[in-house]
Amino acid sequence: MLTLQKQKQFAELAVVIGVNMQKGQEVIIDSDVACQDFARLIAEQAYAHGAKLVTMLWSDEKISRLSYDYASTETLCDVPQYIIQRNKYFIEHNCCLIKIAAGNPNIFKGVAQDKLGKVSAARSTALKEFHDATMSNLLRWCIVSVPTASWAKTVFPTLSEQKAIDKLWDAIGKTMRLDSDNPTAAWQQHLTTLSARAQRLNELNFDKLHLYASNGTDITVGLARNHTWLAAQEEGADGVSFTANMPTEEVFTAPHCKDINGTVHNALPLVYNGTVIDGFYLTFKDGKVVDFEAKEGYETLKKLLDTDEGSRSLGEIALLGKNSPIAQSGILFYNTLFDENASCHLALGASYPTTFKDGNSLTQQQRNELGGNYSIKHVDFMVGTKDLNIDGIDANGNKTPVFRQGEWVL
Amino acid sequence: MLTLQKQKQFAELAVVIGVNMQKGQEVIIDSDVACQDFARLIAEQAYAHGAKLVTMLWSDEKISRLSYDYASTETLCDVPQYIIQRNKYFIEHNCCLIKIAAGNPNIFKGVAQDKLGKVSAARSTALKEFHDATMSNLLRWCIVSVPTASWAKTVFPTLSEQKAIDKLWDAIGKTMRLDSDNPTAAWQQHLTTLSARAQRLNELNFDKLHLYASNGTDITVGLARNHTWLAAQEEGADGVSFTANMPTEEVFTAPHCKDINGTVHNALPLVYNGTVIDGFYLTFKDGKVVDFEAKEGYETLKKLLDTDEGSRSLGEIALLGKNSPIAQSGILFYNTLFDENASCHLALGASYPTTFKDGNSLTQQQRNELGGNYSIKHVDFMVGTKDLNIDGIDANGNKTPVFRQGEWVL
Repeated sequence: MLTLQKQKQFAELAVVIGVNMQKGQEVIIDSDVACQDFARLIAEQAYAHGAKLVTMLWSDEKISRLSYDYASTETLCDVPQYIIQRNKYFIEHNCCLIKIAAGNPNIFKGVAQDKLGKVSAARSTALKEFHDATMSNLLRWCIVSVPTASWAKTVFPTLSEQKAIDKLWDAIGKTMRLDSDNPTAAWQQHLTTLSARAQRLNELNFDKLHLYASNGTDITVGLARNHTWLAAQEEGADGVSFTANMPTEEVFTAPHCKDINGTVHNALPLVYNGTVIDGFYLTFKDGKVVDFEAKEGYETLKKLLDTDEGSRSLGEIALLGKNSPIAQSGILFYNTLFDENASCHLALGASYPTTFKDGNSLTQQQRNELGGNYSIKHVDFMVGTKDLNIDGIDANGNKTPVFRQGEWVL
Repeated sequence: MLTLQKQKQFAELAVVIGVNMQKGQEVIIDSDVACQDFARLIAEQAYAHGAKLVTMLWSDEKISRLSYDYASTETLCDVPQYIIQRNKYFIEHNCCLIKIAAGNPNIFKGVAQDKLGKVSAARSTALKEFHDATMSNLLRWCIVSVPTASWAKTVFPTLSEQKAIDKLWDAIGKTMRLDSDNPTAAWQQHLTTLSARAQRLNELNFDKLHLYASNGTDITVGLARNHTWLAAQEEGADGVSFTANMPTEEVFTAPHCKDINGTVHNALPLVYNGTVIDGFYLTFKDGKVVDFEAKEGYETLKKLLDTDEGSRSLGEIALLGKNSPIAQSGILFYNTLFDENASCHLALGASYPTTFKDGNSLTQQQRNELGGNYSIKHVDFMVGTKDLNIDGIDANGNKTPVFRQGEWVL
């Protein structure tokens, strides 16, 4: 269990390092009602650091589940105009967005995949403008997580509810570097290390990466032209830096969506739309998934791949070593924010405009011509096994070992 | 403590007797995050009874308090357009609105009255269309209450938090007739009794009521022309009946806003904008407050009276006997929903259009000509002491005893 003092430090990190809120800014906190105590700590920190206004965007996954059980697909697909208006307001007012991601990984278990897929696609389409704004950092955003009972019990099923919650708090506290005397300074140091790594990859300017491991993964991922490697810290459209994911261990860039060939197997389960997808592989040809299989969650994976044209290609490749604190914890969090930081990963769907040089000044069409992928989805899945090897291949075909046995060798 | 089974019956009452939701309707549940468990029970009952969709309107009074502590008056007065759009949607979609009222009566204690008053007035003005829609039953609505820790501790300050919550649940359960074997049938019987009482008052067709008691109350309240007495059950604009307040014990109608003369003293504290107003009197001349005093909350009362022209006159007079179950409980709930049902009361501010014959087909101007009051406020305050006497006076000046010693004698 984290002390209230540590929880306050955590909330402050989200405001100061996460969205890097500037005095006089409006802050949106997107939280399940189950996380109300921590949401209030963030609100208080935001105000204490000079927020103009904090607006809560409450949700309740249990009510969402009820709506899937009772309301029609048609009703759920219909996104009221006032939601779109609200999102416009957030963009126009240059709000910061802090999301607390703490969902029960199995909340939608048993809901028809067809219904989940249709509703998810319809909402993504209706909320496209806001999604695009986030993807291109028009507003600065940050995701953090705190334990809820249902999530903690999924992670630690053999413990009592309270013990599971306490243990998950401890684990999250470590990944958030709250065991440091000065968490803010520890984060600044960490961000510097990650930036240096991205810098080195940019200097090497690889054309492709070849990933291979004993589980059958053998895939060559071409990188988009004019791609740039980013680490934790990104730049908002207003030039202010921020850290979108906390914790974060990765450096990442944009694949070339027409130059991906081979097969990749997942290394950890993927939780998508409240459903677990596991034991799956994807085979790519010229950038598109041409074959796939899944031992668990096949239908969900299929719906995801069938969302639109771009959901069959990749929008992100992210690298991190098996010795990262999250990987070392050995905990499967069933939460992308953590699990993606335990393992190298790829993302089905859209690439981030910021992973191109001057990406936000390019049109979507221009980024697409460079190999950038577009989709209404962006879904990470983990591929970094403990024996993953990666070679960087430059424009002349020269190979440089980047990863050996799951860890950096650059 | 109410069993889960009883809580479910309670939730069902709100859906079936309260808003009288019709199959295929949309339901809005307006709840503090502290009441999430009960809000979910209502959502489930609404869906089980055929709701098309349940939309949650979450609030958090602790975040609201933070916003008053940190955000500027100007910022808080600014109601974003998307909120107004959202309310329009609720009206246009003929939604039912169920509100869970469970606020900490002291949540805004210490906030400058000037700030509270300005913000409250600005928001009421911005949300006028929705307020008017509710007042004229354009959408069917219902208010219920469940215990929260802070509210329960205010009601029972000497008990432990858990015991206070349990005791408040028990008290609410009794007022909701949940101790009956068939709460729905008990409510239907109760509604019939109240309707008969309203019917009798309509037959007598009084011109004025004279209220007097030993605390100094001595006031003559003229009734609006074409007024009609209503009881718990009202009719929505779509002709479907509903019960706005649960519990409810009152019969009520519209005073004539230019024909109120004399002085009235409060019988119970009034909680307004999170502030307690007590030990107050109001002196009226020709329908307007011309003098007032308060031992506690004077500034808050002053702000309320100064809101607009109509906030200095009355919009409602409601009668109920001292033997009503809530009055008998002897509990001061610090919550208008209950306390107004323990005592005869008056309301500063707007009259309900429905308290006029064919009121919803009249314009505001027409109702005003009949003596109806208009304001952006409608705030009940309790005047029913145990020795309150009321005489009905007809157009010829004939007197009929209506109340003696705080109880009906009609």
